[in-house]
Amino acid sequence: MIHDGMRVGASGFTRAGDAKAVPVALAQRARQEGKPLCITLMTGASLGHDVDRMLTEAHVLARRLPFQVDKTLRDAINRGEVMFIDQHLSETVELLRANQLGKLDVAIIEATAITESGGIVPTTSVGNSASFAILAEKVIVEINLAQPLGLQGLHDIWIPGRRPNREPLPIIHPRDRVGTSAIDIPHEKIAAIVITDQADSPSTVLPPDTETSLIAGHLIEFFQHEVSRGRMPGRFPPLQAGIGTIANAVLAGFVDAPFDAFEIYSEVLQDSTFDLLDAGKVTFASGASITLSAARQAQVLGELDRYRSRLVLRPQEVSNHPEVIRRLGLIALNTALEFDIYGNVNSTHVGGTHMMNGIGGSGDFSRHASCAIFATKSTAKDGCISSVVPMVPHCDHNEHDVDVVVTEQGLADLRGLAPRERAALIVRNCAHPKYRDLLRDYYQDALQGGGHTPHRLEQAFAWHTRLRDTGSMLPAARTSAQASVTPARA
Amino acid sequence: MIHDGMRVGASGFTRAGDAKAVPVALAQRARQEGKPLCITLMTGASLGHDVDRMLTEAHVLARRLPFQVDKTLRDAINRGEVMFIDQHLSETVELLRANQLGKLDVAIIEATAITESGGIVPTTSVGNSASFAILAEKVIVEINLAQPLGLQGLHDIWIPGRRPNREPLPIIHPRDRVGTSAIDIPHEKIAAIVITDQADSPSTVLPPDTETSLIAGHLIEFFQHEVSRGRMPGRFPPLQAGIGTIANAVLAGFVDAPFDAFEIYSEVLQDSTFDLLDAGKVTFASGASITLSAARQAQVLGELDRYRSRLVLRPQEVSNHPEVIRRLGLIALNTALEFDIYGNVNSTHVGGTHMMNGIGGSGDFSRHASCAIFATKSTAKDGCISSVVPMVPHCDHNEHDVDVVVTEQGLADLRGLAPRERAALIVRNCAHPKYRDLLRDYYQDALQGGGHTPHRLEQAFAWHTRLRDTGSMLPAARTSAQASVTPARA
Repeated sequence: MIHDGMRVGASGFTRAGDAKAVPVALAQRARQEGKPLCITLMTGASLGHDVDRMLTEAHVLARRLPFQVDKTLRDAINRGEVMFIDQHLSETVELLRANQLGKLDVAIIEATAITESGGIVPTTSVGNSASFAILAEKVIVEINLAQPLGLQGLHDIWIPGRRPNREPLPIIHPRDRVGTSAIDIPHEKIAAIVITDQADSPSTVLPPDTETSLIAGHLIEFFQHEVSRGRMPGRFPPLQAGIGTIANAVLAGFVDAPFDAFEIYSEVLQDSTFDLLDAGKVTFASGASITLSAARQAQVLGELDRYRSRLVLRPQEVSNHPEVIRRLGLIALNTALEFDIYGNVNSTHVGGTHMMNGIGGSGDFSRHASCAIFATKSTAKDGCISSVVPMVPHCDHNEHDVDVVVTEQGLADLRGLAPRERAALIVRNCAHPKYRDLLRDYYQDALQGGGHTPHRLEQAFAWHTRLRDTGSMLPAARTSAQASVTPARA
Repeated sequence: MIHDGMRVGASGFTRAGDAKAVPVALAQRARQEGKPLCITLMTGASLGHDVDRMLTEAHVLARRLPFQVDKTLRDAINRGEVMFIDQHLSETVELLRANQLGKLDVAIIEATAITESGGIVPTTSVGNSASFAILAEKVIVEINLAQPLGLQGLHDIWIPGRRPNREPLPIIHPRDRVGTSAIDIPHEKIAAIVITDQADSPSTVLPPDTETSLIAGHLIEFFQHEVSRGRMPGRFPPLQAGIGTIANAVLAGFVDAPFDAFEIYSEVLQDSTFDLLDAGKVTFASGASITLSAARQAQVLGELDRYRSRLVLRPQEVSNHPEVIRRLGLIALNTALEFDIYGNVNSTHVGGTHMMNGIGGSGDFSRHASCAIFATKSTAKDGCISSVVPMVPHCDHNEHDVDVVVTEQGLADLRGLAPRERAALIVRNCAHPKYRDLLRDYYQDALQGGGHTPHRLEQAFAWHTRLRDTGSMLPAARTSAQASVTPARA
């Protein structure tokens, strides 16, 4: 059913609920046939089970969107062999529905079951599965016997109507259920059913460490300050936290924080979400997928009834929808690869050129949140890389969309500040001490040229080229003992 | 009533409906008193009547947001004397409402009238006036006798509720009226009424020229192609067009285009909007302000009854609201200062450092539109500046949010393309012939370093520094005859 040149949409969001059999078989077939079998593959977000690796190695991927985290695929993207379209996760099926990405030939959807009335019940993610199934010509369903039947009822499938007569998205509170519990499509579109029995690939998130715990501490102190200033009236706003070690650690920090009974409206529900549900801190969690460590996966899927009334899984165009995010007034916490002295954020491109994973949902959430926070450790690679740089060589989130930046060093609240004020604050509060003077030197030099956002264009990327050429952003004279004893200026 | 250190919100959006007397008196007072009188001034967008110049010269502006177009103020911003916060126009009062910009002390609102029940009837703009009046401690009303009473009934005041219990914004079609016709606040908050009789400053938009007409032609051809591919089913989607000469020229081009009965959902309604209403091409226009040339202003304000049933003026947080823009599936047309070979757009910073006007509503519209278009002439200053550059030195709209770029040379449809594909298309279709080979040279060199988005960081801003140092982006050898005869490569 899958031929060279086709567009295929597969379930899967952050390793959860991904199609596990058909893509692997496709890679095998491509290797065996030895003739071109190249497709455009769309998913919800990242896949598990090395599927992207296998498809890349078999040269099946001509085009891939909207997100990935696989090393083999990433390398192929960076060699220009796979055309990767890095998209806001809420937008892929919006474009598809508007016929802006061409016709979808086949959808491959992992399911818990097919109901008597023909509805496809997703598993641990909804992602783009519902719209893929609705928009594709043919649907292949993978019934995964390893996913518990208890998942049924957890999903809330609501799909925006076609424009120009679209109605409002009726979610007012994170817990609102507005759709159906299965994906309803005509029976005759289901072209094949495949039985599988593999669990989801477990999450690769690391446990909190000293630095991520410090970041969590700075944020909780900030939130307490916000409450005291009357900026979070009534109760703590719904929280979104991006996937990854830092966001997971910050959420973990909430277990002991003085905020009770708040809700999560996010895309990925990680281990920490369930820690907070267990601790009674979080009363409800809405997401597009559940991505857990192996131990947590066994526990949560084994005890779904404990969580059933406090969980919902939605299509990613609902979990990440601008309309709902702005209406709910979310706090959005996402991870930066690096940010600059004016608060522009690079989320995607190492050295400004090489794709890491993709923007994911970070833009969906940060643009529309009531408070958009970006977190990172202040340095990487044993201090050879500063995550606070003069200018980001790729800008995913600019000054207009970034409210707060935070590292283990501290937090900078940028709201209502002009670029020159931001620079002073970011350098003082967020940069690692051994890079502070260098950043101040850059900024002082840039000031000579004037401007709303002073820069010295010749030097703006000197740190990145130095890293490339010497292995460190520090100038040679500073890489030795001098660096570690440079005192911070007042 | 206005003292040093206060936060003041004034009406005014793109020179329309601005407070015309009190700010001028404030500047005079500051000059006469000779003691510090520095305020934070928030408006809808830009002001007329040289108010920003007078306030800047009197050193009244400590902080200014969210937009401006005044040369004297711009220079002060770029010297670092006025702290300017460049914001998405939909977000200012959202931040104010959430207590993230401090308390608003005074609002100064131009009005046509105050109704018997106490409602303030705005004039030619709504902008942020309603929320300023609601959120400020005191309100000063300027009743402008030069604005026709016939403006009453044109406005539709709807203000989002406070989170976390906010309801959907109920606009489904551009013509929907969902609010009240005046700004309702308690009488006792109106602290003063000032009578004025000055017309709005006329628009400074230039008439179409050869290049803007070519841009209009490329876009109309593109739209015809979109219709033929079934991407605009039913009827032509509602259109947004940013303020300025290019957008005005494109709209003017629609008078003879084969698209009937479409609607405008925009922020500024310019001369061209009324040309299209007069021609019967546009059936309804929704905006936040009416900004016209002197001749059009006299005609439109004199014949408001002709347009009454086909016009509405809204708060800018409604005209520019992500929720409505995405729901309606707008086509958004905005102007770029420059864009790069990958489709990243600089809308604000000359040379990456010096503020021009601000991002305005361009981000509100382009992120959420069904098709986000950025237009510019391919060169400026007699060809010494290319508007297509290797890398933008300031990024207001990145690759994730830009669907189409267009110059008088041609149009590049970037949807569904990876960065390497975008580069080839943008250079071929949009760059001026005398810069095409230089861009190809940059790109070919960048390819040696690989990556999803190839760049040569050392050379990324060489064009901008060359312009600064020599007055031209062209290398010395190319500024003579050679440049104009360089043939485009295949």
